[in-house]
Amino acid sequence: MTAARFGGLPEPLSVPDAGDFELPASRLRAPDGLAGLVTADDADRLAHAMGQSYADIARAFLRQVPHAPDLVAYPQDAADVERILDWADGEGVAVVPFGGGTSVCGGVEADVGEDYPGAISLDLSRMNRVRTVDQQDRCALIEAGARGPEFEAALKPEGLTLRHFPQSFELATLGGMIVTRSGGHFATLYTHIDEFVQSVELVTPQGRMTTRRLPGSGAGPQPERLICGSEGILGIVTAAWMRLQSVPRHRASATVRFEDFASGAEAVRQVARSGLNPANCRLLDPGEALMNGVGDGRSALLVLGLESADHPQETNLARALEICADAGGQSRGGRGDDKSEGQAERGRDTAAAAWRQAFLRMPFYREVLVPHGVIVDTFETACTWSAFPEFHARITAGIREAIRRTTGRDGEITCRFTHVYPDGPAPYYTLYAASTPERMLAHWREIKLAANALVVEGGGTVTHHHAVGRDHRPCGYDRERPELYADMLAGAKQAVDPRGILNPGVLLGRQGGVLAGGHG
Amino acid sequence: MTAARFGGLPEPLSVPDAGDFELPASRLRAPDGLAGLVTADDADRLAHAMGQSYADIARAFLRQVPHAPDLVAYPQDAADVERILDWADGEGVAVVPFGGGTSVCGGVEADVGEDYPGAISLDLSRMNRVRTVDQQDRCALIEAGARGPEFEAALKPEGLTLRHFPQSFELATLGGMIVTRSGGHFATLYTHIDEFVQSVELVTPQGRMTTRRLPGSGAGPQPERLICGSEGILGIVTAAWMRLQSVPRHRASATVRFEDFASGAEAVRQVARSGLNPANCRLLDPGEALMNGVGDGRSALLVLGLESADHPQETNLARALEICADAGGQSRGGRGDDKSEGQAERGRDTAAAAWRQAFLRMPFYREVLVPHGVIVDTFETACTWSAFPEFHARITAGIREAIRRTTGRDGEITCRFTHVYPDGPAPYYTLYAASTPERMLAHWREIKLAANALVVEGGGTVTHHHAVGRDHRPCGYDRERPELYADMLAGAKQAVDPRGILNPGVLLGRQGGVLAGGHG
Repeated sequence: MTAARFGGLPEPLSVPDAGDFELPASRLRAPDGLAGLVTADDADRLAHAMGQSYADIARAFLRQVPHAPDLVAYPQDAADVERILDWADGEGVAVVPFGGGTSVCGGVEADVGEDYPGAISLDLSRMNRVRTVDQQDRCALIEAGARGPEFEAALKPEGLTLRHFPQSFELATLGGMIVTRSGGHFATLYTHIDEFVQSVELVTPQGRMTTRRLPGSGAGPQPERLICGSEGILGIVTAAWMRLQSVPRHRASATVRFEDFASGAEAVRQVARSGLNPANCRLLDPGEALMNGVGDGRSALLVLGLESADHPQETNLARALEICADAGGQSRGGRGDDKSEGQAERGRDTAAAAWRQAFLRMPFYREVLVPHGVIVDTFETACTWSAFPEFHARITAGIREAIRRTTGRDGEITCRFTHVYPDGPAPYYTLYAASTPERMLAHWREIKLAANALVVEGGGTVTHHHAVGRDHRPCGYDRERPELYADMLAGAKQAVDPRGILNPGVLLGRQGGVLAGGHG
Repeated sequence: MTAARFGGLPEPLSVPDAGDFELPASRLRAPDGLAGLVTADDADRLAHAMGQSYADIARAFLRQVPHAPDLVAYPQDAADVERILDWADGEGVAVVPFGGGTSVCGGVEADVGEDYPGAISLDLSRMNRVRTVDQQDRCALIEAGARGPEFEAALKPEGLTLRHFPQSFELATLGGMIVTRSGGHFATLYTHIDEFVQSVELVTPQGRMTTRRLPGSGAGPQPERLICGSEGILGIVTAAWMRLQSVPRHRASATVRFEDFASGAEAVRQVARSGLNPANCRLLDPGEALMNGVGDGRSALLVLGLESADHPQETNLARALEICADAGGQSRGGRGDDKSEGQAERGRDTAAAAWRQAFLRMPFYREVLVPHGVIVDTFETACTWSAFPEFHARITAGIREAIRRTTGRDGEITCRFTHVYPDGPAPYYTLYAASTPERMLAHWREIKLAANALVVEGGGTVTHHHAVGRDHRPCGYDRERPELYADMLAGAKQAVDPRGILNPGVLLGRQGGVLAGGHG
């Protein structure tokens, strides 16, 4: 459906396979001491060459893989990670941690510059066990390489769940979620995984550390909060004690229609400050609702859902709908609230279910459109409510202008709120632009840089939950964060990674990544 | 009442006045450029010589003030702070930030060692304005030196409140609360002030920084979280944008009696994981209930309160009481839930009100008992639920033993939970021991070190919300935090405070403070 909108698309590029790529010879030799842990095999190197951003997929179709790592390591435990870091530190080899490989911002690409004799991709996927479940504390010790479905499968028989479902859930690993501060299931309150991290195990070139299992503390700046969002530059997270949820038994949901996005936003602002803390509170603008098959393109749609493992949510939903009605919303849909998970699922209304399906399907659209030279990308941010109206107008006008300027044709931009706070929303933008297979990467670069600049100049953050990586630095993170804070972060890194081998170019230091490719 | 329990107390020391103290001559001269901002007056120096720990009060009665600062500065704005730091950095003078002076852990005592030509106490109390209130975002920009009652008075006409009431509320300043990660009103969810900090202004010897106003972000480790709990070692917080609450209109509360502390703890564990998020959820052990005048000393008491600015809380209270009943609790007291603040207050039951009065009165008890040589001290911690039973048994036995060993007499120790989490409680201990005016400080040192060691060896944190300062380091924080984390913190400090002038000995570096006095 979506492709048809761009009528007259060029012939698609063919789907690449591994044989299409010729990698430069590996510059590193695995030492004997790491035999069995490390490989220089081209298939492994190719599979660890990039993440899943638009640019990554476009480059895969274009057979461009400029920064394959020289080696790939598959540690089985923290001691293996330590041995690998020891060797890399001794040789000055760059180490790029690799979880699910779902980075959409150049976080796992081994574009480390000329200061290193080579780069090793550290794949944690073999460290994937749930080691201990503690029912008393409702916590579990989970290894960093466990993917979403892997740890959820181990928790399910215990009646527990992390209940953190980023869009990358199927592939993403716990460690990756932690170091990128991933955003998950809960639209309010527990928006980032940070809230669920009770303690972390970290391996650095200077040794290992484990923070204490504590429900809360006031003893100095919280150690876990320095690791959350560190994107591998301070060490490799090897495991974490995570705070879990009981499986919800009560649910209530509805959709609310608003005449326009602004009145929907006002309703959401009121709901966000009400203390009702809905698990789902996704506001879709008219274009987004249409694109997701849950609207007619004329009105904005709020998907609202409350859940609890302990008590019914009907009264809370009714109150949330009252708030929405006061802001001009018209609600519809079931308000099911049943005792069993299966029944509760049936109680969800159909628009909400359609939205959820579309959400899960979203990344796959891209693969259909990209070979035609269509640019389909998303970027997400957060800003205060007071800034939002002007911010949103700037973003949408600015992106439309950037698309026209670069491609010479009109594009589309839609918006939804993925998470909301009493002091502001987290808007998530999707853009579509028709380009050509030959020029799509160059066009994307211009549009991406414009997006970085627009959100940061408008007072937002360059990322609410996609992380910084390499692609959110130029015109973005490097302007957003105070210079002195970057100095403090660099000081902390210097203490544990004095040779700077850990994920160079992410967050700090020399700028690499696919955006740098277009800019000398 | 309490004093009578220690029958046969020695004659009290007389209440000191300023004339009793002879301070050593100031070693520093205020430069002409800082005229009007800085004073070497003895009254100012004495008033900034220590905080409000047991040891501080004991030493005041004993006329011991070993570490008065050489100068006291009263900046009016961030530019003044910058000028003072510039001068101090140039001279290598230690700077000890001073908010309300309510530290109970040696956080404001200028015990900086011999590496500095002198120390200056930086009193922020003249920076006490609420600069801007933003109704749309429900936030305010508040200067760091504003005391609790000062900023609440400015917020009240706006219908807003920070709703953060540490026991030191009357005197404590916003900046002090932030850098000590103070614990406040909310027993669940928003336990520490960290949750309310939207952005901070910080002045360091390397310049100024302001973090961005954002409701949430995933761009690198969160800058504000490195400042929360930094206790002045990374810079001087001069102002902060704070997330506020609407004044609650709905309240419901009750007290629940349990046969013993353990069954009360189990009820609280269930309530903490229910998602009901009570604002008050204080469990008092039988001794604590008696001491607070709300119990007979035989049963444990849970003070439970829910509140909302948006919706009634009766149903939620009923559910919480159901959970308590399942764990053997017997509830009583009103469940008032009214629309106006005044009526809501009347709805609170009398035991809850009595407890609140006792809580606010608590620090003043100390001043009555101390001159008799009675040791009255509190320490607080947090641990996991799975650790708690053994932890609690170790703490109470260990402290009783330490009191007997040091004083030769039996003492008392009581416990309450001030804050609770799904994964553990924050127990708060109060101890009483009869000593003599001559020996109380030496006895206190032994008991305090035993407390530090007991909580940290038992798996708890040395402080849940009193901060680390100088007194929680020996046998405590220095064991609790990973060595590599201390290195990272030191690296961050080095970047912004290369000469190490900011609050030396707090969190990191040379150990000073009143505990060091007793240990070479």
